[in-house]
Amino acid sequence: MQNVLDPKLRAHFDAHRQGHLDDLIELLRIPSISAQAEHAGDCEACAAWLARRLGGLGLEVSIERGLGRPGVLAESPQRPDRPTLLIYGHYDVQPPDPLELWESPPFEPTVRDGYLYARGASDDKGQLLAWVQALAGYRAVAGDWPVNLKLFFEGEEEVGSPTLGAFVAENARRLACDHIAISDSAMLDARTASVVYSTRGLAYAELTLTGPAQDLHSGHYGGVTVNPLNALARLLAGLHDGNGRVTLEGFYDGVPALSAEERQAWAALHFDEAQLLEETGADALGGEAGFTALERLWARPTLDVNGLWGGYTGEGPKTVIPAWAKAKISCRLVGDQDPQAVLASLRRHLERHAPPGTHVQLRQFAAEEAWRMDPASPTLQVARDAMAEGFERPCVLIGAGGTIPITRMLQRHLGVDPLMVGFGLPDDRIHGPNERFAVDHYHKGILAAASLLARLGRVP
Amino acid sequence: MQNVLDPKLRAHFDAHRQGHLDDLIELLRIPSISAQAEHAGDCEACAAWLARRLGGLGLEVSIERGLGRPGVLAESPQRPDRPTLLIYGHYDVQPPDPLELWESPPFEPTVRDGYLYARGASDDKGQLLAWVQALAGYRAVAGDWPVNLKLFFEGEEEVGSPTLGAFVAENARRLACDHIAISDSAMLDARTASVVYSTRGLAYAELTLTGPAQDLHSGHYGGVTVNPLNALARLLAGLHDGNGRVTLEGFYDGVPALSAEERQAWAALHFDEAQLLEETGADALGGEAGFTALERLWARPTLDVNGLWGGYTGEGPKTVIPAWAKAKISCRLVGDQDPQAVLASLRRHLERHAPPGTHVQLRQFAAEEAWRMDPASPTLQVARDAMAEGFERPCVLIGAGGTIPITRMLQRHLGVDPLMVGFGLPDDRIHGPNERFAVDHYHKGILAAASLLARLGRVP
Repeated sequence: MQNVLDPKLRAHFDAHRQGHLDDLIELLRIPSISAQAEHAGDCEACAAWLARRLGGLGLEVSIERGLGRPGVLAESPQRPDRPTLLIYGHYDVQPPDPLELWESPPFEPTVRDGYLYARGASDDKGQLLAWVQALAGYRAVAGDWPVNLKLFFEGEEEVGSPTLGAFVAENARRLACDHIAISDSAMLDARTASVVYSTRGLAYAELTLTGPAQDLHSGHYGGVTVNPLNALARLLAGLHDGNGRVTLEGFYDGVPALSAEERQAWAALHFDEAQLLEETGADALGGEAGFTALERLWARPTLDVNGLWGGYTGEGPKTVIPAWAKAKISCRLVGDQDPQAVLASLRRHLERHAPPGTHVQLRQFAAEEAWRMDPASPTLQVARDAMAEGFERPCVLIGAGGTIPITRMLQRHLGVDPLMVGFGLPDDRIHGPNERFAVDHYHKGILAAASLLARLGRVP
Repeated sequence: MQNVLDPKLRAHFDAHRQGHLDDLIELLRIPSISAQAEHAGDCEACAAWLARRLGGLGLEVSIERGLGRPGVLAESPQRPDRPTLLIYGHYDVQPPDPLELWESPPFEPTVRDGYLYARGASDDKGQLLAWVQALAGYRAVAGDWPVNLKLFFEGEEEVGSPTLGAFVAENARRLACDHIAISDSAMLDARTASVVYSTRGLAYAELTLTGPAQDLHSGHYGGVTVNPLNALARLLAGLHDGNGRVTLEGFYDGVPALSAEERQAWAALHFDEAQLLEETGADALGGEAGFTALERLWARPTLDVNGLWGGYTGEGPKTVIPAWAKAKISCRLVGDQDPQAVLASLRRHLERHAPPGTHVQLRQFAAEEAWRMDPASPTLQVARDAMAEGFERPCVLIGAGGTIPITRMLQRHLGVDPLMVGFGLPDDRIHGPNERFAVDHYHKGILAAASLLARLGRVP
């Protein structure tokens, strides 16, 4: 791999490290919590801040109001001889609770031991602003960019981007592009940069199993009544076999076999299972037999109960057979698994196995397809090279166990697979107390973004 | 069966129906809710009311303060040539919530359509006062009683009689007797009087199954972590086999085989399963294969999950693998099943089957043995005859699915099996809104109590 960054550009970024950090601290001071209505004004302020910045770079900026929180859309003049890159990010953040666990206040950004601590530092303001700084550097040093630019920053990602799909569909022409870059994820580990080329999908539903018309006394009715809690446990237990495989009919339809190349490439990552154990605090891993941890996480579907409740859950004993029991059930999906087919199969399975005297209600929460790029895609190699140059580390292709609906949505509406170039680290504590972003990763993210701009400008 | 009630006594009871009812209304006006500290004074007032009544009959009365709520202990002169009967009852009542569902206020007793509506009407003030009226009648008509009397009315039954065991053990000599009568239950149905000769025991524990050290994201960890909710469902499902039998090792040790006589006698009760379905509001019954509903309810042990919780139980979806899952688990026990052995077996089973990566904690709530009299006992026949005379209906022996720890406790400490002569009806709505007691059952209960006094005086 050859380095492509102009030394003058690199010198510019090195010289502006403090200014870049001050910018990020300013942005992080705005508590742009999308989930809480009382912070709607802060989301407005955050969008306005970004719009001013992008306007200052000579981009044409609009605040988009057809969304739950304002979106910021910006573009450079579109020259027909250059490819167009769409950069996606989100400026909204998770609520900071529980506040008492923060060592410094979530909206008073504080640098300690090389990390900037604040809500949104890694997810996603730090990563988003790295792109803006990269653009600013190009503008300052070269006066222009190597590609046509479009930027879209949304303010509803942390509440599931409820209005984004419709917006992207309606504005597909304005957002049309050749490449998409998203920096809203973490690298494999501190030693290894990475580009994500697959994310799992999600099928999520809530089961209500009803039995008696009202709660009954377990002495007066125990032994003659179907207990929805006993029945729920049996139903849920029946969703896996003894090898941890999901028993739903047709569940594995569309699950691709792992290629020998992928198995080999992932084995070569020397993934640290001991580290995974330490992260979880459990004393053993679990999951489907016959696959490594990385394979189970990136390439195998799951079924997890995420919540379970019914009967008496207060202090002490109460002898009740309850009228109902509930469970939240989600499946992570891979390859071409159809979320709707999975939910339909779940419903059929539950209805078939619910014992007489009980009834199944199923309420759907999510049905998101998995996303996967061909690992041999030349653009992925370009992204790897840019990350390797920026971070001065080897860069590998990785999967992601989670679901990033935006990736799949952009791919569907714009016909372009996003390049998932994440600058974060696995222990950035996103969504938790003491979220942080390594100051060094912010800087290297800027270099990686600039390198990717340069490299995409050269793609034939 | 021959009637034994002196016609003058019967005439006295008939003549005093209104006075008896007025008495009960007075007693029911006192909101003697043992569970609520603010009603401690009402419990005092209730105990004082009863003490005055019993004192007025020439009994020697003491208010017993070695209990959480005052107990009322009374006795007649103990003549050595007569057997001694101990009458147990409780004056405390359940909280009346939810108040809005009462058609008339719970502590303003109201007669409608032959029923007296009030909290405590059936459980247990009406049944307890029937005994006092029977004693008063004897006193008025005959000047004495056919047996030596001891009465003990407690004020903590509705909170589980936490101090009663120690009190009875310490006062075993004062409470020593030949017979015990308890009227704190319901008859089989409106057409059939009954005496309860068995109650089920109870083993109750709370399971906490821990896994990861903290809640994890189901995308980032799903497929590699043991999910305590999945594991809990599997553990609980494994507690029954496909025939509804409990799989715990040694669980059925001490469960007596049903005799041909009992099966025949119970079949002859023509128990109405359609009525049971209607009461539960479910569209099918459940339970162990190979037994009738009455057999399952009275003579077979059960294992029921009474509460279940863990993970996210709020509105909507959350993709979490939680750190723990909990279940409240209780077993109804019969015959000589040992509650401690059952709990120990439960613990061993859970520990043996909990998957690697999870850990079992079990907290014990209750360990109550079952109670059972020999159905051929002559005293049971005496009680049946008294109930048949009082209610002018056939009287059968029945089991009870619930657990009445007092029965077993009195049997253990005093060496006497109580006669469970309940005057209530299955639809008296005890513990619920609109509790009621049939005015006619109150009167017939008085007659039955008087008949039992007469009959026990004749037992050789």
